[in-house]
Amino acid sequence: MIIVLRKGATQKDLQGVVEEIERAGLKAHISKGTERTLIGAVGDERVLSAEHLQTLPGVEKVLPILKPFKLASKEFHPEPTIVEVNGVKIGGNKLTIIAGPCAIENEDLLMRSAKYVKDAGADVFRGSAYKPRTSPYDFQGLGEPGLKLLKKVREKFGMPVETEVMDTRHVELVAKYVDIVRVGARNMQNFELLKEVGKIDKPVILKNGLSSTIKEFLMAAEYIMSEGNHNVILCYRGIRTFETDTRFTLDLGAIPVLKANTHLPVLVDPSHAMGKKDFVPAMSKAAIAAGADGLLIEVHCDPSQAKCDAAQQIVGAEFGKLMGDLRKVAEAVGRKI
Amino acid sequence: MIIVLRKGATQKDLQGVVEEIERAGLKAHISKGTERTLIGAVGDERVLSAEHLQTLPGVEKVLPILKPFKLASKEFHPEPTIVEVNGVKIGGNKLTIIAGPCAIENEDLLMRSAKYVKDAGADVFRGSAYKPRTSPYDFQGLGEPGLKLLKKVREKFGMPVETEVMDTRHVELVAKYVDIVRVGARNMQNFELLKEVGKIDKPVILKNGLSSTIKEFLMAAEYIMSEGNHNVILCYRGIRTFETDTRFTLDLGAIPVLKANTHLPVLVDPSHAMGKKDFVPAMSKAAIAAGADGLLIEVHCDPSQAKCDAAQQIVGAEFGKLMGDLRKVAEAVGRKI
Amino acid sequence: MIIVLRKGATQKDLQGVVEEIERAGLKAHISKGTERTLIGAVGDERVLSAEHLQTLPGVEKVLPILKPFKLASKEFHPEPTIVEVNGVKIGGNKLTIIAGPCAIENEDLLMRSAKYVKDAGADVFRGSAYKPRTSPYDFQGLGEPGLKLLKKVREKFGMPVETEVMDTRHVELVAKYVDIVRVGARNMQNFELLKEVGKIDKPVILKNGLSSTIKEFLMAAEYIMSEGNHNVILCYRGIRTFETDTRFTLDLGAIPVLKANTHLPVLVDPSHAMGKKDFVPAMSKAAIAAGADGLLIEVHCDPSQAKCDAAQQIVGAEFGKLMGDLRKVAEAVGRKI
Amino acid sequence: MIIVLRKGATQKDLQGVVEEIERAGLKAHISKGTERTLIGAVGDERVLSAEHLQTLPGVEKVLPILKPFKLASKEFHPEPTIVEVNGVKIGGNKLTIIAGPCAIENEDLLMRSAKYVKDAGADVFRGSAYKPRTSPYDFQGLGEPGLKLLKKVREKFGMPVETEVMDTRHVELVAKYVDIVRVGARNMQNFELLKEVGKIDKPVILKNGLSSTIKEFLMAAEYIMSEGNHNVILCYRGIRTFETDTRFTLDLGAIPVLKANTHLPVLVDPSHAMGKKDFVPAMSKAAIAAGADGLLIEVHCDPSQAKCDAAQQIVGAEFGKLMGDLRKVAEAVGRKI
Repeated sequence: MIIVLRKGATQKDLQGVVEEIERAGLKAHISKGTERTLIGAVGDERVLSAEHLQTLPGVEKVLPILKPFKLASKEFHPEPTIVEVNGVKIGGNKLTIIAGPCAIENEDLLMRSAKYVKDAGADVFRGSAYKPRTSPYDFQGLGEPGLKLLKKVREKFGMPVETEVMDTRHVELVAKYVDIVRVGARNMQNFELLKEVGKIDKPVILKNGLSSTIKEFLMAAEYIMSEGNHNVILCYRGIRTFETDTRFTLDLGAIPVLKANTHLPVLVDPSHAMGKKDFVPAMSKAAIAAGADGLLIEVHCDPSQAKCDAAQQIVGAEFGKLMGDLRKVAEAVGRKI
Repeated sequence: MIIVLRKGATQKDLQGVVEEIERAGLKAHISKGTERTLIGAVGDERVLSAEHLQTLPGVEKVLPILKPFKLASKEFHPEPTIVEVNGVKIGGNKLTIIAGPCAIENEDLLMRSAKYVKDAGADVFRGSAYKPRTSPYDFQGLGEPGLKLLKKVREKFGMPVETEVMDTRHVELVAKYVDIVRVGARNMQNFELLKEVGKIDKPVILKNGLSSTIKEFLMAAEYIMSEGNHNVILCYRGIRTFETDTRFTLDLGAIPVLKANTHLPVLVDPSHAMGKKDFVPAMSKAAIAAGADGLLIEVHCDPSQAKCDAAQQIVGAEFGKLMGDLRKVAEAVGRKI
Repeated sequence: MIIVLRKGATQKDLQGVVEEIERAGLKAHISKGTERTLIGAVGDERVLSAEHLQTLPGVEKVLPILKPFKLASKEFHPEPTIVEVNGVKIGGNKLTIIAGPCAIENEDLLMRSAKYVKDAGADVFRGSAYKPRTSPYDFQGLGEPGLKLLKKVREKFGMPVETEVMDTRHVELVAKYVDIVRVGARNMQNFELLKEVGKIDKPVILKNGLSSTIKEFLMAAEYIMSEGNHNVILCYRGIRTFETDTRFTLDLGAIPVLKANTHLPVLVDPSHAMGKKDFVPAMSKAAIAAGADGLLIEVHCDPSQAKCDAAQQIVGAEFGKLMGDLRKVAEAVGRKI
Repeated sequence: MIIVLRKGATQKDLQGVVEEIERAGLKAHISKGTERTLIGAVGDERVLSAEHLQTLPGVEKVLPILKPFKLASKEFHPEPTIVEVNGVKIGGNKLTIIAGPCAIENEDLLMRSAKYVKDAGADVFRGSAYKPRTSPYDFQGLGEPGLKLLKKVREKFGMPVETEVMDTRHVELVAKYVDIVRVGARNMQNFELLKEVGKIDKPVILKNGLSSTIKEFLMAAEYIMSEGNHNVILCYRGIRTFETDTRFTLDLGAIPVLKANTHLPVLVDPSHAMGKKDFVPAMSKAAIAAGADGLLIEVHCDPSQAKCDAAQQIVGAEFGKLMGDLRKVAEAVGRKI
């Protein structure tokens, strides 16, 4: 960490900063320039609080040198993490396709959707029993009965299943029924929830928040990992910007940046980002070409009967064709589906 | 709601949309233009799902006419809501100043901060016992012992106290100790938490999410209100943008827009938005001039001992002067402190 | 265009709006709902000003139905436009790769860069003689001598060349030396410049502005086309958001949206968006997979000697390998390089 | 400037960076930490290119210490600049109110608007003869005849007049007719235009770009100043964000940040930011309370006849009342109107 003193800072100001650094067990390295005096804190700077140093008299700014995340960083763990769940490996050369309806509406629709997903060759089945909805008047999900239906899908089709958890009180229950637990974008900084899923022994899919930086996304993964659960799978679903022609903004530039910073697997969710199914195939291909380790795609046997996000779900009957197209792109970048 | 059909939509497409509208108990009003056919849904459109209509064959786009929030809207409740808590009225002509440290560190610091806050004439004391921190390695708050200290402040200084709640499991406990419960920006769309604070009989301060629109902010208030708790106090704390010279972006333009749309009281939190205490006085004055009903300001007896957000907390000894300055601006816009 | 009246609007308000619509030669279609009265303007709504209607008494909001751009729209011109320049076809099944250094520094560096570009099989050579720089103290480009060097590249390597124009006074001069004229992101709404390049007989590459919506981007193309020059090539180079780990944010989701709205060719510039060359290959592949018609990539024979944007330029010697990788992705999506 | 080397950088990498620093005439100061090696460049770092250093082998990142602007900085020029134009002082204790219609439509409307502006006690009259419009089909302004009308206003009402310039070719002409020349948001990084207005002897109002940071805004001012014209008046008009309930986002938090960084006067334009006249009074008061040196407000004698931005212009007859309200707020913060 570098502490920059204001022009005109006194010797006493300098001394105050040095003392704080030494109190934390680090060494202070002073460098007097023609314009500013800088103080370097030598050692693992994560024990220092930039916020606190900022308040000391004479301090102009504090520049961190190291990244704030550790367990999630590639520097700490250079080899890619491969998360294994019931025989499916997430994070390796073979891409992982997770597909299924946005929400679980009833057994019939769910089973029909699952058949399309299985037949097309996807790896994991998704479906939400608890739904974060902008309006309290919209369908909020089936709750536990929905989880039971997911379990039926797993048994009938032999696919791992995943679902969202939104409440610390539901974590244990949800983890009982499904193979992978998902934390949605709106809960990326619901730190109590992160800690709670950090204590279970099921893998966690973590989506980025709509206005979170890549650093904050990795810090949220660090929260889960710091509780002991290292099976974190990142899922990028875009951010909010001024553009309104798509539901959110799918900035695939985040993919190579994530891959350069972390060993965790990185999936992409093109459905929620784009909000319109016509745009999902192009962005699915692009995500794979950008280096994603897989996709989370919404597929519904009959979107006109969907109770949420109907516009963005791929029609079951068209999913097989999309999978074929994705296979070609995967091969073009040296991977498999 | 207006449904716009694509150029080339068929008579059957048109018929399909009309049937959906009528099935929901509304009337369909068809208007054939030279370029497009429009279908108006006549009645309370909130029973229709724009998402669902969007998926019907031939539909180009769906334009809502009414605002999606109802209980929170000025149209539904034209008179301003005044929330009363232990004699303090929030939302009337007299502004409400809520002040106190970011986090509760220990009894000594808390009491010293509270004395400054009380002496300067603030109305409510704030302090967090549970802290949402970006890093799992940062101070996470004292928890229940912190709540007990808050209760002591209330008893000693005769001021209502408020604090943040971050977990559905803590709502009951927190509500037992404090007069006002706060939901922070990162939890604005933690819908389970919103529902839970909607069931208690204490007022709730709701902060806007960092990437939430004003409509979504009011929809979050609607969540709380729809559970029965109508004592919601909005607190605007800025949004995230590309600007990095301030911690977040304090777009005070949101204040008159909120006041035009809702009857709920609107406070402003300049401390978290700006992130540097030197900028807090200017923005406190500006918030009042923009029409806010009060402020939530961080004040600490000794910020150099603060365990979080040290840089943005006003020094206790300087708070009295700021209150004096704010009084003048309040009077200039016909209000009181 | 739909005009929504406020609750409580009078018969006179209604009449006022109807008169305005009829004065513009359109028909007014009134629809009285239970909550609001709506007035539809039937005919080509582009003759009406939404801004003006908004100011009429009793008007709550104005909803446009049609898109504001016409010449650039797919509806107006359903077939894709193919821009031909010296035998290179931009916009067809074969992708167009435009490559070269950010700025033109001197003849030696330029010729060496051009050789790498030509040998790797790119279609067009790029290089800027005029540079938009954030600081007035940075290298501003060679000006006309740079244009002359570009002409030499064209003659020696038999490739079309393109360069940026930043000033209405330079348009004629620039068009004399190069085959394609480029308008940069910072000038996307420099309307005088758009009009000026709309009058020349050379194709124009138009980059999107950093905070421009897709609609505004197409309106800027419309400016050029409305002056008579229909050979507009769009180039998407990302937008500005809160993320700071990349120079700008490359939201490839814009590509399928652009392709759905316009017949104009769409290129992607991954170099300026990402700002670091290590991320350029991934995003080049992703852009092609997303459906772009080609790329604008910065390639420099020796980036350590570059006078601007050194960090984002692909090293000449590595460009051939990248072209090979791109070819595979192009084939996977049914296209060629 | 601090250059951070990658973990594992070699002695040769280190040497390469040191040589570059010394070649630029600065001293290199090496600091080997436990995690990273840092190299400080001692001296006026503005002669070094961060971009270039970034490309050297072994470099992880480059951290600038000094601000990139100089002439515009408070450090360079601690006293506030007061721009004087025909007896009006901009930047001192007395606030400057500039008002007038968005566009100049004809003599009758302009004179009627000017009378309202003069009678209400504003200091400068504004009106645009050249209009940047999103659509080529919208009214583009009167051009030189409009400038002549502005001159008539100056003669008849004895007020300085200001107008926008959009094209380098018009700078001389515009400067001939008006007292202050304005560069609009869309041209904030039209560097050729900045250089051109840097050569005239009339003050320049510079508006911030819609996606420009505060640093970039000050760098644009630096462009003008570096050509010799130090009479730059900044005008903050908000930025673009995801919020759609206002035309742009008026983040008044920028005002105290600007005032802390520069000696130049800072005005606020609430009209273009909010886009609706009902919100302009609140934001005008807030801007003054936040510390702005004045306002640029749109006032039209009859907005229903306005040819652009009709919705955001204050009605002439209501402007006097607003001025009275602003006076009270100005006094509350120790200033005058």
